[in-house]
Amino acid sequence: MAGRLKHFGWGREGEGLTAEEEKAAIERYHRLFGVEHFAEIAPPALPEIELRPPRITPPPTLTPHCSIERYDRAAHTYGKSFADYARALTGNYDNAPDVVAYPRNEAEVRAVVDWAGSAQAALIPFGAGSSVVGGVEPKIDGTSCHAAISLDLRHLDRVVEIDRTSRAARIEAGVFGPALEEQLRPHGLTLRHFPQSFEYSTLGGWIATRSGGHFASLYTHIDEFVESLRIITPRGVVETRRLPGSGAGPSPDRLFIGSEGILGVITEAWMRLQDRPRFRAGGAIRFADFFLAARAVRAIAQAGLYPANCRILDPQEAQNTGAGDGTAAILVLAFESADHPLDAWIGRALECCADHGGTPEHPGKADTHREGAAGMWRTAFIRMPYARERLIRRAIITDTFETAITWERFEAFHDKVKAATEAAIREATGRPGQVTCRFTHVYPDGPAPYFTFHAFGRHGDLLSQWRAIKSAAGDALIAAGGTITHHHAVGRDHRQWYDQQRPDLFASAVRAAKREIDPQGMLNPGVLIDP
Amino acid sequence: MAGRLKHFGWGREGEGLTAEEEKAAIERYHRLFGVEHFAEIAPPALPEIELRPPRITPPPTLTPHCSIERYDRAAHTYGKSFADYARALTGNYDNAPDVVAYPRNEAEVRAVVDWAGSAQAALIPFGAGSSVVGGVEPKIDGTSCHAAISLDLRHLDRVVEIDRTSRAARIEAGVFGPALEEQLRPHGLTLRHFPQSFEYSTLGGWIATRSGGHFASLYTHIDEFVESLRIITPRGVVETRRLPGSGAGPSPDRLFIGSEGILGVITEAWMRLQDRPRFRAGGAIRFADFFLAARAVRAIAQAGLYPANCRILDPQEAQNTGAGDGTAAILVLAFESADHPLDAWIGRALECCADHGGTPEHPGKADTHREGAAGMWRTAFIRMPYARERLIRRAIITDTFETAITWERFEAFHDKVKAATEAAIREATGRPGQVTCRFTHVYPDGPAPYFTFHAFGRHGDLLSQWRAIKSAAGDALIAAGGTITHHHAVGRDHRQWYDQQRPDLFASAVRAAKREIDPQGMLNPGVLIDP
Repeated sequence: MAGRLKHFGWGREGEGLTAEEEKAAIERYHRLFGVEHFAEIAPPALPEIELRPPRITPPPTLTPHCSIERYDRAAHTYGKSFADYARALTGNYDNAPDVVAYPRNEAEVRAVVDWAGSAQAALIPFGAGSSVVGGVEPKIDGTSCHAAISLDLRHLDRVVEIDRTSRAARIEAGVFGPALEEQLRPHGLTLRHFPQSFEYSTLGGWIATRSGGHFASLYTHIDEFVESLRIITPRGVVETRRLPGSGAGPSPDRLFIGSEGILGVITEAWMRLQDRPRFRAGGAIRFADFFLAARAVRAIAQAGLYPANCRILDPQEAQNTGAGDGTAAILVLAFESADHPLDAWIGRALECCADHGGTPEHPGKADTHREGAAGMWRTAFIRMPYARERLIRRAIITDTFETAITWERFEAFHDKVKAATEAAIREATGRPGQVTCRFTHVYPDGPAPYFTFHAFGRHGDLLSQWRAIKSAAGDALIAAGGTITHHHAVGRDHRQWYDQQRPDLFASAVRAAKREIDPQGMLNPGVLIDP
Repeated sequence: MAGRLKHFGWGREGEGLTAEEEKAAIERYHRLFGVEHFAEIAPPALPEIELRPPRITPPPTLTPHCSIERYDRAAHTYGKSFADYARALTGNYDNAPDVVAYPRNEAEVRAVVDWAGSAQAALIPFGAGSSVVGGVEPKIDGTSCHAAISLDLRHLDRVVEIDRTSRAARIEAGVFGPALEEQLRPHGLTLRHFPQSFEYSTLGGWIATRSGGHFASLYTHIDEFVESLRIITPRGVVETRRLPGSGAGPSPDRLFIGSEGILGVITEAWMRLQDRPRFRAGGAIRFADFFLAARAVRAIAQAGLYPANCRILDPQEAQNTGAGDGTAAILVLAFESADHPLDAWIGRALECCADHGGTPEHPGKADTHREGAAGMWRTAFIRMPYARERLIRRAIITDTFETAITWERFEAFHDKVKAATEAAIREATGRPGQVTCRFTHVYPDGPAPYFTFHAFGRHGDLLSQWRAIKSAAGDALIAAGGTITHHHAVGRDHRQWYDQQRPDLFASAVRAAKREIDPQGMLNPGVLIDP
């Protein structure tokens, strides 16, 4: 926790791949692309980054909690998408915020919102900046805003109140994942929301983006854990009532969950928590191919067993992450409970696997979640974000996208999306790349497939090459009936596909709601809808 | 299925309590109130009901699918709340719709919506008319509407398409519960949504009101089973994408689920279905008191076991329904599965019960769901709606209200709400009545308590007496942090408490959304928000 967050790359300064990890990662790409040497360029060092002079100045009362320093502005210009890295690599910081605000409490958040209103400045809630969809970029072209303020709630990082009986806590929205879990641990409680960005994302960011977390089934999104919300808007405070369930009109929470900062700034939430798990059962199961594994997972998802983990890796993805040898799909399956042994649960799930030809990797071992294939994959999963900032220096384009589709369409859908992405890679880069797939979450009525692609690009063209590939993938998955995002959010990058996906009248309704709550259109303009 | 729906009372003409059932019901009230004779009055017969002449006439193309007959208009004036019965009993049909429309397909629904717009008439989606919150009353005082059309979708009653692989079906919104299940049965599928109104409510009504159904935990509301929606609005059609899960912006479905007809007419939905259960385990468990039972239920709810039924009856409620002798609270507990035996599930749940002093009614018998206490209660539950139309004739005020509250507040909450309701009964009627409580649904963070009250009123004053009791209960539960409705909806009757409960800015947002979608404010005016 020593360093400050990097202005370019994942995590904090001083963190990253070891030389050994980096070597191993690069070697795979030598083999994949048949390339002997990757010409490497470096992103500009902080002092080399050119920023326009700030267009606004904070009022005196806010000055102590605002920064116009180069580091703060550069570190709040981008999220962590490929397009962000590609632009930062070439020194493009045109959309840097004019000011970064670090309020220490809700009163200061309100003061920043008021100031932004009077300055006609866009206000961009930053979370911890790990958006991969252009959700935190202070881009104000084409809006009526004169400047941009990035709002960083890192100081609102406390668990304020714990209700052990109901297993819930009132939590400030700026808390990062590890600090949240640390404060819950003494109470024997856990949110168990572990997105890949866990270390560098915040509770407020999770809620604003409908983050997908730890649980592969049942409680797939943060949505289900929100008991109530507190939100600062330009028109005042919204606080929803703390209830375990309600049927009183459309859910107020559900309007703000997923609103990506366009309707207000989430400052606090009562969250439903879990007891810390004491029982675990699981392991890795091999299948001859991805679709056989998918059928087993469908059976499990429809059986009402609710595994905490139920991830299939296709054979190539299994090999890439060290979880397999490339000849089989691997299902990483895990049940967990704070209450009871899980023999009946895992027993029945393994029968579902056997019905579709699945064979356990280590038969007889119940808990291999942190060992073997499952453990290998887990390590790769956690280290992956650190790899991308190193790969792009070598013009290696690697990115992911996730979606969801009902079971009866899944197999054809998978093939179409994969083929379209592969074809786009060939066309954009002049050579084949690789597209792999896994399931991150599963539902009784369908899976959430998660695609990863790898392509060898050209420095100078990386952004347009990536965009061509991303567009082909987005077009294919929208045409085939999927969603443009299952848990990465919409931001600015997914707008063209989201605009096809959501009903027009729903967009009109949200636009009308936004005009009511944010009459100046200053909250994260360009995200989700046009003002 | 022979008769038409009653214009007064529950169900179809010719249905109702047997003489024996009625005698048993009344005898309990003789004892409860210490009253020897109940003076009885009868509601006006159909020919005696006076209706104003219709203020509008359907256009020729719609004439065959519209009615201005006395029966249709009278039968579409009210839902089934106590206030509805009390007014109908005195022959008050002031708010009868001018016309009842029975479109046979979506094109005709659109035509009715267009006509209502051009006639500046309010359009009230009727469902099957079992609203208990004033949700279907064509009340246009204080609105800009010149007339009222009740929209009855009973002809949109088909399961249109089945996706067996994903276990989902596209279903027309006007289908009644039994007809829906009948069409699913040949496919081995079931929605398993069994509200008390199951026989006299529709899919569209369930979705529009966030109906609570069969499942006591996990999938408590219809919300969770909605895969996508099709809605006709004055501005056009809204169709959401069929997805097992998504994180793309605020959920469009969740804006329309619970919108109670103010944002559009739901004509169709893709619904998530279940395989028909093959395994069951459960029974009735006795506890010394309600709060001990509640603690056991909290343990079960927090254990991740997800029982299909988990209803506690307090001792008095158990006695009233024949499920107990009044000395103990009864927990009706059931697990069901289409996939696996439930020994581990029921075994652990019974341990949770034993931890809090619960003793099974028939130890060793795993499945007593349809026998003993559980079976008695189930029969009482299904027959209850038929009793109310007979009781009110005798000035017996009996009604229910449900709410939800987090566990740590539950016991004090229960006592406050019960005491306030008891005091209001004494004050309004001059004698003690009875207030009982059960749980209908439970969550890890709290229960949904469901209160029933019984009071002996006076003919002529029934409405004001009921209102005094209802107000005291509503005030108490809102003051103590509950929701004004867990699954009966808001309608017009709950507005004063709903207005305290929902955030003002959320109401502003919904109002703005409604103005966008329904610029004339013609859709179910007065429900949920003021236009």
